[in-house]
Amino acid sequence: MTKINQNYTELQGSYLFSEIAKRRTKFMQENPDAQIISLGIGDVTLGLPQAVVDAMHGAVDELAQSGSFRGYGPEQGYDFLINAIIEGDYKSRGIELNANEVFVSDGSKCDVGNIQEIFSQDAVVAVQDPVYPVYVDTNVMAGRSGKFNKETNQYENIVYLPSSAENLFKPSLPSRRADLIYLCYPNNPTGMTLTKEELKHWVDYAKANNSIILYDSAYEAFIREDDVPHSIYEIEGAKEVAIEFRSFSKTAGFTGVRCAYTVVPRELKALDENGNIIIVNDLWNRRHTTKFNGVSYVTQRGAAAIYSPEGKAQIAEILDYYMTNAAIIRDGLQSIGLEVFGGVNAPYIWLKTPQGLDSWSFFDKLLSEAHIVGTPGVGFGQSGQGYFRLTAFGSRENTEKAVERIRKLSL
Amino acid sequence: MTKINQNYTELQGSYLFSEIAKRRTKFMQENPDAQIISLGIGDVTLGLPQAVVDAMHGAVDELAQSGSFRGYGPEQGYDFLINAIIEGDYKSRGIELNANEVFVSDGSKCDVGNIQEIFSQDAVVAVQDPVYPVYVDTNVMAGRSGKFNKETNQYENIVYLPSSAENLFKPSLPSRRADLIYLCYPNNPTGMTLTKEELKHWVDYAKANNSIILYDSAYEAFIREDDVPHSIYEIEGAKEVAIEFRSFSKTAGFTGVRCAYTVVPRELKALDENGNIIIVNDLWNRRHTTKFNGVSYVTQRGAAAIYSPEGKAQIAEILDYYMTNAAIIRDGLQSIGLEVFGGVNAPYIWLKTPQGLDSWSFFDKLLSEAHIVGTPGVGFGQSGQGYFRLTAFGSRENTEKAVERIRKLSL
Repeated sequence: MTKINQNYTELQGSYLFSEIAKRRTKFMQENPDAQIISLGIGDVTLGLPQAVVDAMHGAVDELAQSGSFRGYGPEQGYDFLINAIIEGDYKSRGIELNANEVFVSDGSKCDVGNIQEIFSQDAVVAVQDPVYPVYVDTNVMAGRSGKFNKETNQYENIVYLPSSAENLFKPSLPSRRADLIYLCYPNNPTGMTLTKEELKHWVDYAKANNSIILYDSAYEAFIREDDVPHSIYEIEGAKEVAIEFRSFSKTAGFTGVRCAYTVVPRELKALDENGNIIIVNDLWNRRHTTKFNGVSYVTQRGAAAIYSPEGKAQIAEILDYYMTNAAIIRDGLQSIGLEVFGGVNAPYIWLKTPQGLDSWSFFDKLLSEAHIVGTPGVGFGQSGQGYFRLTAFGSRENTEKAVERIRKLSL
Repeated sequence: MTKINQNYTELQGSYLFSEIAKRRTKFMQENPDAQIISLGIGDVTLGLPQAVVDAMHGAVDELAQSGSFRGYGPEQGYDFLINAIIEGDYKSRGIELNANEVFVSDGSKCDVGNIQEIFSQDAVVAVQDPVYPVYVDTNVMAGRSGKFNKETNQYENIVYLPSSAENLFKPSLPSRRADLIYLCYPNNPTGMTLTKEELKHWVDYAKANNSIILYDSAYEAFIREDDVPHSIYEIEGAKEVAIEFRSFSKTAGFTGVRCAYTVVPRELKALDENGNIIIVNDLWNRRHTTKFNGVSYVTQRGAAAIYSPEGKAQIAEILDYYMTNAAIIRDGLQSIGLEVFGGVNAPYIWLKTPQGLDSWSFFDKLLSEAHIVGTPGVGFGQSGQGYFRLTAFGSRENTEKAVERIRKLSL
């Protein structure tokens, strides 16, 4: 009989969100009149900016006529979008990129999941802890994780970089050399950031150790403070050591529209087994063109509209709305003495659970006493134990109502 | 230094389409007045059906308002589309499927490229020859191919199933046991099909040998003859041995809109290393939800509209248009004595090159003497040598003009 990829048997159940749903459903059955507010999901709720809507309508009309129809486009994305990205997201910050260094895709989840495939199977992988589960799971599937240890709640061969209030969620450099280092800033789930100086330490480490940083900056649009880098390429020499992932999902409400991009600088090198130097950009290009067929033309037109003057203004307004929610949550929780992180340059608020409660006990308390659903920090990794994530993506009304309810709790 | 996936170094250059572009460009530079007609590309040219256009506009408007906004959807696709697929493509042919057996994606290229990942690295892979290059290349990337042999133009560990005029492009069963067998019907590039009886031989082989058939039926909508199966599940017991890939690309002009789906029946089993029986559907679900984030909502609404009465009628008209082109090419070539295959149940016409010319010599002759660009058969594999592919996706005017030009050639 045909055999499966045995590595899949090492995957742990995607326990977090199913367990949340289970507990929520049970509570609702027992308390049918409770008005539950969800501040748990990392999904946006406001409508698309008008400039995007107009561009998408225009693109649909183009596709309706054979004269203006567009079929297969370049797998890497249309020039009109790539040029807008380079101009709007990089050149404006003093970073030069060529068009062949930007790969448009249908989502950062796909890109951060697929990127590991172009590297060797024995590459040592380091991840922040707590962390977005896709980085770990895709390396488990590829056979890089080793066995799962139920006592430590961690994989044997993954290098974990613990983040907690003690180190202000700025993890130390890896304890042993890593080939691939996943960094996410502004961070999901903690909402914390690095300064340029702090990010430079990582670039320096990568250079000294010939490592590659996989830099997920899906939340860069939420950055409000000056000294926080939007791109890792703001750090000198980072092009030699880093791949950067960006998404339109949270920036422009594209979670249901699907568009992201990945930057692979031509300067980034790796070795083959015979010691030959390989341009990583060529490998990713080969993967992208072999296993992907480009993003919807309608979506790409919508994404390009984000960079128009109207698009920029409309997005700024949407981002302000969410970041005002973040401030409301942050201020509200702090006012009752909770220890709160994030929420300044990111739509995520990460709080230390009061009374020494573990993450799930706090989840139950919040659900049963305030009818609020959030996300237990331990779901993102062992170092998330004793923390809890709330998101700023709800409506203003629900956000304010939720904060009022939390204020009334005895914590 | 970080090492690459060494398997990538075994990939052969994607020579075919770049070489075509090079020769075409050179000819145009030397003959600037020539009116070149391309019957080479496998891309559609007519505009989207109006029902699809209307549905996509409606979806864009929904996304514009927070009340009707949709963010992340189910990675597997929305129920409204999955139910329409099951009803329209399967139940109508007497095939029962459950919603959790259908996975909506952004393209069959992605699905047929990614499917190998859930199987073991030492799985033996069989492909038809000539063949769509993605099946082979993605297995090379995964390390299943062995070395490329420049003399045979084939990979050592791939089992090739040669198709030619001698076997009417119906390859024999594999000479050694294969775990994964890629079959594509209606076939790209040959345009040929199997009868139900012939397809049953493959299902029987798979059952007897515990193999899995990866059945690519991206062109099923072009089938015109009664005894040609649209789905492999029309063959009894096929659910136990086959995964089926379908695409909206050619069916409804979605090459630039991006939507496809894959059926993985719950009956399909494989083994893990310890001999435990594993449900393949669970594995694919895990892959799909970990590395993919769903298809654009706008695209899914467009795809669902294909199954409305108006959508069906509009698509039938478009398919008729292309198949009339196919008949024009087929009849025209036959009338001057060429040996022609396909074009009856597929938009591809596969011809035996006249005068014993090899594929590239015929390409040059057609380009220089008739100003027509087609695709050399050898580009799809060694058994394609001495064959040539033309497609029915051009405009009627260009198709007729091209046939007239070919008629005038001395062949």
